[in-house]
Parts: sequence; C-alpha cells; structure tokens
Amino acid sequence: MLKNNAIIWRAEVRDYEVDYQGIVNNANYFHYFDHARAVCLEKMFNLNIKKCAENNVNIVLIKTEVVFKVPLTYGQSFYVSSKFERISRFKFRCQQEIYIDPDDTLSAVSDSVIATITKGGKPYLIENLYAITPLP
Amino acid sequence: MLKNNAIIWRAEVRDYEVDYQGIVNNANYFHYFDHARAVCLEKMFNLNIKKCAENNVNIVLIKTEVVFKVPLTYGQSFYVSSKFERISRFKFRCQQEIYIDPDDTLSAVSDSVIATITKGGKPYLIENLYAITPLP
Amino acid sequence: MLKNNAIIWRAEVRDYEVDYQGIVNNANYFHYFDHARAVCLEKMFNLNIKKCAENNVNIVLIKTEVVFKVPLTYGQSFYVSSKFERISRFKFRCQQEIYIDPDDTLSAVSDSVIATITKGGKPYLIENLYAITPLP
Amino acid sequence: MLKNNAIIWRAEVRDYEVDYQGIVNNANYFHYFDHARAVCLEKMFNLNIKKCAENNVNIVLIKTEVVFKVPLTYGQSFYVSSKFERISRFKFRCQQEIYIDPDDTLSAVSDSVIATITKGGKPYLIENLYAITPLP
Repeated sequence: MLKNNAIIWRAEVRDYEVDYQGIVNNANYFHYFDHARAVCLEKMFNLNIKKCAENNVNIVLIKTEVVFKVPLTYGQSFYVSSKFERISRFKFRCQQEIYIDPDDTLSAVSDSVIATITKGGKPYLIENLYAITPLP
Repeated sequence: MLKNNAIIWRAEVRDYEVDYQGIVNNANYFHYFDHARAVCLEKMFNLNIKKCAENNVNIVLIKTEVVFKVPLTYGQSFYVSSKFERISRFKFRCQQEIYIDPDDTLSAVSDSVIATITKGGKPYLIENLYAITPLP
Repeated sequence: MLKNNAIIWRAEVRDYEVDYQGIVNNANYFHYFDHARAVCLEKMFNLNIKKCAENNVNIVLIKTEVVFKVPLTYGQSFYVSSKFERISRFKFRCQQEIYIDPDDTLSAVSDSVIATITKGGKPYLIENLYAITPLP
Repeated sequence: MLKNNAIIWRAEVRDYEVDYQGIVNNANYFHYFDHARAVCLEKMFNLNIKKCAENNVNIVLIKTEVVFKVPLTYGQSFYVSSKFERISRFKFRCQQEIYIDPDDTLSAVSDSVIATITKGGKPYLIENLYAITPLP
C-alpha cells in the first residue's frame, strides 16, 4: 500500500461515470489517476500543470498500465494514492492505487511514466521536479 | 502493424477531446480503444456488449497498458486497429494501435486483457467467443 | 440565490475538465448539474436513480436551459445549488446554480424539466417524488 | 427541419457514451452539439476555434437550450444539423437538431447563443464571422 509519503486525493463516483454495465466506465479510472497526478504534483512540488502549458511546457504521459481489481460502482466514495520517483533526467514514474471507502478495498493499480517536454517536443527540465528522487 | 485480420475503426478527433495542453486528453485514447474493441467484437464475433449486459454478463477489462507515441491533435482523423486472441477459458487479449491519417503515423499502442463474467462476478463463457483462437 | 431549502453539492474543477480555451468545457457543466440533481434526489427524497433504472424506471431530462455567466477555470472549487418543484403528475422542474468559491461568484444557471418514465417509454409515478410540491 | 443551408455532421453512438439507463448520457448531446458547431464554423466560415484560442480569442457559449425528444441508444448512428445567424455585433445564434438514422427520427433540438471574446473577457469581432447574416 502506497501510504507512506503518498499524496491522497478523495472523490465520490459521479452519476454520469457509471456505464450500462452498472460500473464505472474504465476511462474514468484514467481520469481519476490523471487528476490525482495533477493534485500530487501541485501539493508535493508546487507544480501547476496548466501554468506549465501556458509556458509551453507539457507534462505528458509516455506509458501507463492499469490493473483493475474491484469495480467502482454508483454511490461509492474512494481515494487515489500517488507516488512519484525519478527514472531519468526528464522522466518520472508514478505509482498509483485506488481504494474504495470505507473498507480500503483495492479497486485499481496504476503504473505510469511521464515526461516533461516543450510544445516543440524537446525534453525540458522543470526546476520543481529536481526534488523528486528515486524511492529507496 | 496489426493490419492482417485486424478490425479497423475510423474516427476524427472531436473538439471537446482536446485539453489545455492542445492535445487529445489521455483518457480519450482509452475511450477510442474501448469503443474500437466493442466494434471489433460486434464485427468479428457478432457480440453486442450491451445485450450481454442486459443478460447479466459483463465484458470487463482486467488489465490494460498504453504506450503513447505521437499525440493526436485538433482536427486530425485516425483509425484504431484491433486484434483478439484467447489466453484462457474466460480471458482474451486485445492488441490495438492508433494510426493518424493520412501518413499512418503510429500514435499509440495498447495491450489489454478482458474477461467475461456474470454480474455476480463469476467467470462465464460467451458462445460467440469460442471462435477466438490464439494468434499464430 | 437558491439557498433556502436547496441542496448543495460541492466539487473541485478536475484537471481533465479544462479544454484548450483554458476554461471548463461546457459539457462538464451538464455533468455537474446532472450529478447534483442525482445527489439532490437522493438526499431530499431518498431516491436512487440507479436503483430506479434497475427497476426499469428512468428519470429522464425532457428539457434543459443553461446560461453561462463566469467560466470555471483550472484549480477552482465550486458548489451547485439545486431545487425541485412539481409541474405535473410525472414532470418536475429543477432550478440549479453553480457558484465559484470563495466569493460565491455565480458561474452558471440552469433550468430543467425531468420526467419519470418506464423503459418502455410510459409515464410512471415514483412514490418518493410525491413529496415534491410546487414552490411558493 | 434545418436542412436548407445547414451543415451536417454525422457520427455513431460510442460504446462509452451510453449510461446505466441504457441510453446516451445527456452530457454527450452537448458534446455532439459542441463538436457540430465547431465543424460548422470551420466548413462555412473557415474558422478554426483552436487557432482562435491560440490567438487569445475564445468562442464561448453564452446560453444553450436543449429539448430531448427521442433518446439515442447503443449502436445507432445519427447526424447533427447546424445553422448560424447573427444576433448582434459579437453574438451569434446557432440552431441545431439531431436526427437518428435511418428514419430521420428527431432526437433533440438545441438553440444556443455564442459570443466571441478575448481571453481578457472583452468582445472581439472575428473577421470570418462577418459573413453570418440574419436568417430570412
């Protein structure tokens, strides 16, 4: 469980996120993970992704893997736990987990690589991310 | 390239799918892959996911991996190529690729595992999927 | 301001809801209003829309109007205020407003009509909604 | 029927657009109308909304009304018909309709007002839109 040093973002399943199978549509998990990463970057490194974009630096997803364990359903609340580690000069790994309230049931696990690049597509080092060091 | 025996689904990037970074928001790739899988199951195996859901059988994603190569942007059209193979009695692997028109630029690659289960969570064999055999 | 007897639902703008114009994409306002209506029906009338759907009764939108005042942007939090009144045996009006924190800036105003119908399309009276009476 | 001089945009209902009631979630109609307006502005007036945004001019929705007639469901294809008329120096009205194939069943009707403003919030006249004249 990614609890130590992880940043937690809490939310409730929204009405429109549930599909005709009665469970949260898969793409919403990516929404949750996506927003939780943004929250984590802001809270831990004071990094505002939108301001970066306005300064022509994008924080992009290179690769992501999600393993679905227990589906989220209508009316549930949950939290996303996120942790970053540096894997190269311009690349970072983000490990995330979604837990369902109130029993901390593990719903989904994600492992992603993000990179910081200019709008022209060149690698770019964002100072705020210097602080991300490899996990022990 | 997954062209042989693959099912192609074509679309255009929609206005609202582009985020503040000026590129298609990542979750939309999952939407594209998701819908392309549904189209493929319908075209190749005459399997309607919604009718399955009405009969209390869900086709769920167990695991998915996406590698992002070249971002889709506003105004582009693209196609998704999808191929299924069987990996166990109730599990299937789906390999997918997104190509950008008109130069067949590879935009993203996806590798997923789906399973067929009842609403109660038990594995269930859908007859239409008997036909899915391992790729050579 | 719809504060008296209105049900409040609070949320934050999510990263992926902001489009290339730098503001929340319009369709998300409908998501917010939609989910706030569901929350309101649950809190005020103990009515779970999903359970209704499972019992073959849908709560559908007949008509909706939205006036956009001040756009929501990245990083903001807001709340939706919702109020129902009955307009006929099977139809209800819902007036809603979105306010931006922390200054209660009015962002958008919505006026909708919903109806309760069976999956077959016939009007159906849900007992929980007896309690909705005309506003003074 | 808005057929004369209207711009048509065709699409299919996508798998993930269908909610737990078995019909297209309402917010997707706004997506459809939104994208159809963008297509219409591009085709009729050579106006690219994203390029406008890059030049700090946003085309924003001031007001929109939607009347829902017949719900779109899984597997259907449809088209959106869009027509613009000028209502003031910086404001335009857009009337739209969604029709379901193959019988041209009217699914939804929309009436919207859009305005062209700078990122700072001031009205701005886009030359391409000079051509929009009042409907007879």
